[in-house]
Amino acid sequence: MQEHQHFENTSVKYADMVIKTLRVRIEDVPGNLGKVATAIGKSGALLGDICTHHVDSHFLTRDITVFVQSEKMLEKAIANIHHIKNVSVIKIIDEVLNMHRDGKIAITSTIPLDNLADLRKAYTPGVASVSELIYRHPEKFYDYTYVGNTICIVTNGTAVLGLGNIGVKAAMPVMEGKAVLLKKFSDVNAVPILIDSEDPDVIVNAVLAIAPSFGAIQLEDIKAPECFEIERRLIEKLDKPVFHDDQHGTAVVTLAAMMNALKLLKKDRKKIKVVINGAGAAGMAICRLLMGWGIKNIVLCDTDGAIYNGREKNMNSAKEEIALLTNLKSEKGSLKNIIKGKDIFIGVSGPNLVTPAMIKSMNKKAVCFALANPIPEIFPKDAIKAGAVLALDGRSLNNALAFPGIFKGALKARAKAITLEMKIAAAKAIAKEAKKGELVPNQLDPKVHHAVTKAVFEAV
Amino acid sequence: MQEHQHFENTSVKYADMVIKTLRVRIEDVPGNLGKVATAIGKSGALLGDICTHHVDSHFLTRDITVFVQSEKMLEKAIANIHHIKNVSVIKIIDEVLNMHRDGKIAITSTIPLDNLADLRKAYTPGVASVSELIYRHPEKFYDYTYVGNTICIVTNGTAVLGLGNIGVKAAMPVMEGKAVLLKKFSDVNAVPILIDSEDPDVIVNAVLAIAPSFGAIQLEDIKAPECFEIERRLIEKLDKPVFHDDQHGTAVVTLAAMMNALKLLKKDRKKIKVVINGAGAAGMAICRLLMGWGIKNIVLCDTDGAIYNGREKNMNSAKEEIALLTNLKSEKGSLKNIIKGKDIFIGVSGPNLVTPAMIKSMNKKAVCFALANPIPEIFPKDAIKAGAVLALDGRSLNNALAFPGIFKGALKARAKAITLEMKIAAAKAIAKEAKKGELVPNQLDPKVHHAVTKAVFEAV
Repeated sequence: MQEHQHFENTSVKYADMVIKTLRVRIEDVPGNLGKVATAIGKSGALLGDICTHHVDSHFLTRDITVFVQSEKMLEKAIANIHHIKNVSVIKIIDEVLNMHRDGKIAITSTIPLDNLADLRKAYTPGVASVSELIYRHPEKFYDYTYVGNTICIVTNGTAVLGLGNIGVKAAMPVMEGKAVLLKKFSDVNAVPILIDSEDPDVIVNAVLAIAPSFGAIQLEDIKAPECFEIERRLIEKLDKPVFHDDQHGTAVVTLAAMMNALKLLKKDRKKIKVVINGAGAAGMAICRLLMGWGIKNIVLCDTDGAIYNGREKNMNSAKEEIALLTNLKSEKGSLKNIIKGKDIFIGVSGPNLVTPAMIKSMNKKAVCFALANPIPEIFPKDAIKAGAVLALDGRSLNNALAFPGIFKGALKARAKAITLEMKIAAAKAIAKEAKKGELVPNQLDPKVHHAVTKAVFEAV
Repeated sequence: MQEHQHFENTSVKYADMVIKTLRVRIEDVPGNLGKVATAIGKSGALLGDICTHHVDSHFLTRDITVFVQSEKMLEKAIANIHHIKNVSVIKIIDEVLNMHRDGKIAITSTIPLDNLADLRKAYTPGVASVSELIYRHPEKFYDYTYVGNTICIVTNGTAVLGLGNIGVKAAMPVMEGKAVLLKKFSDVNAVPILIDSEDPDVIVNAVLAIAPSFGAIQLEDIKAPECFEIERRLIEKLDKPVFHDDQHGTAVVTLAAMMNALKLLKKDRKKIKVVINGAGAAGMAICRLLMGWGIKNIVLCDTDGAIYNGREKNMNSAKEEIALLTNLKSEKGSLKNIIKGKDIFIGVSGPNLVTPAMIKSMNKKAVCFALANPIPEIFPKDAIKAGAVLALDGRSLNNALAFPGIFKGALKARAKAITLEMKIAAAKAIAKEAKKGELVPNQLDPKVHHAVTKAVFEAV
């Protein structure tokens, strides 16, 4: 338990709670705020910030942020508050919705445009000389446009977070969120591109058509197996980075945690036995990157258990290819059998698929990365209780550690692709930035993204 | 001449000049700056701002902005400066290029992201509740994303300014310039989309595929006749505004100037005789909008002279359709013949196609809008000298008066298309904002764009 606590994110206890703010009008009498806080606590809700909104002669209006597990809990908290004399909830504010109102990104001008002189330099007639320069010297395109620091984030909304196939409109807040992270963490411009189609041809052709507008392409939340074909075809056709974050972002961060885990436990990557559950976008990419880094013994499982060369049920071309490269002893059977005697479990599958007994059946000093979102294969605290020495879930092992710096480094270097070397360099940089005793660093630490940018830039 | 001066833009004399800044090291002796200014003047160059860059014990370094007509003139100015004792040009700075370096736009975050609480509201897990809300209520898509205030500017780079078919890369500085104008004039987000193809199918399919990402589509600098087909097909398929600025932006601004010209001259729109030279994107759209406003007598000319019903040479489907609606007396012959006895000439064709004699052959109180870019059909001062009472060129009759407010109004109203009524409303608003005695207002006046936005919003 002790070791687990090193890695537990303090935010975990709020993970499945909804944030609301109650505007409460309270008679200005000593002890009243204590009564309100107690009333909220009795409902089971947790308290966040308390800010004074308005003061008049006899009443205070305060905005009280609460974390609730359900609408029912919120109603209970409000009912409890209303039992206090001369206290009432006058408004329920949804802070999350408020933050997302009108979106989270904007296109801005980076130049002044205050007078005719500015206008004549920025637009006609001045701009003609810039266009003529690029016409004569196309290699200067990136020097005089924003394209060299700009990517598009392409989604068809078929595999969004833990929500699944919710469509492009509902996916947009997530895409804008990614764009915010790219801007804040590595100062990359990112334009969300929504393509409402599950047909790889439609997506590939549209992205190829608009590709000159962007310095790199991020594929996002596109379900397997279409994502593999889309990425492969775009990489073949484009001489700029194409990166499916759900595959490679996850893989890079997992590799970073793996590097630190092996170091902490003094295990050898060539001898370690790994089982990965989930043969979708993330599972395949993790498997390939771990192999690229030198891990030899990996068994990949899906809903039909271990994938092995010659298996006939529930296969596809990606699984057939991976079967040739992994599971060299041709292990067969369900995850429950395969996990026995393994050193490391990596889950990119679904909720609660791993039991404490399965963790117990692993080798000593077992490591558990249960990354299913929002509910992991097994909660880290349960894995630790069952005997794992290191356990993480997707909240700390987060793609946002990787993709901002990977894109920035690739764009700065004007890379033509994201190579294995660049991904391993990114993982090493992330691993190195982790504080002593931790597997991965905090994604809000700017040093991490600078380090990843530099490492990727140098690996191009 | 007098009336022309009312409308002459003060910037006209710099129109074909290049802006450079000379960094000059000057011995700090009284009278030296005067010598430098005189030396520059002798070369024929004009002086702009003079800023002190550096001061040391015996020398001043000044940045002197000059407007030159050619590289040769710049060399002459520099040579003249070097003849002055203890004065030297140490650097030539290209202010225009500097302004465009790394582009002119950026994607920014509109929300704070300073701590874990922000991150958990903006991204996972908070964002999931916003996605779920849009999934259940797709009509809230515009409320919780930036899409409702965002357009894309689509070009294939085939008809850029006066530069022609220079390709998408060289077109990009112009597209970014448009995006800057949209942001500054009407706070609309605009994303340039470059599609390197002259095939309408490729462009239409790509724009349809990515259309969910944007609230409206601006087509820009796509040559005729492809632009007509592309616009028509997109309008048919999309339930959001599609607007080819080179056609309709130009038409709206021309109509605004026309409204004020007729008012000033007390002429009746139903009786006025108009000749338009140029049957490309702009000419066709101007013709249709003037008819939509109630002008009856219009003859459209191209390189083969008047377009009439039954003409066989150099026709296309757009010209055949317009031939049925215009030139009701079936006038035939070259522009030189057709312009005789007309009240208003509108040129959207090429440089120097109208002679003073042709202006003289027009009716009394003739009006001349010579909009060819960068060199008009006839310079306003020459048209006035030849007897026109009102003359404008493309520098003051600028699309930027129209498109920012048109898009803002349409987006605010969530319009499904840009209708004739919206275009006429925009023209009326522009006309009304012109100062007394002027035909169109100053594009840098924020009131103009507010007025256009309001008028278009109300006309939806």
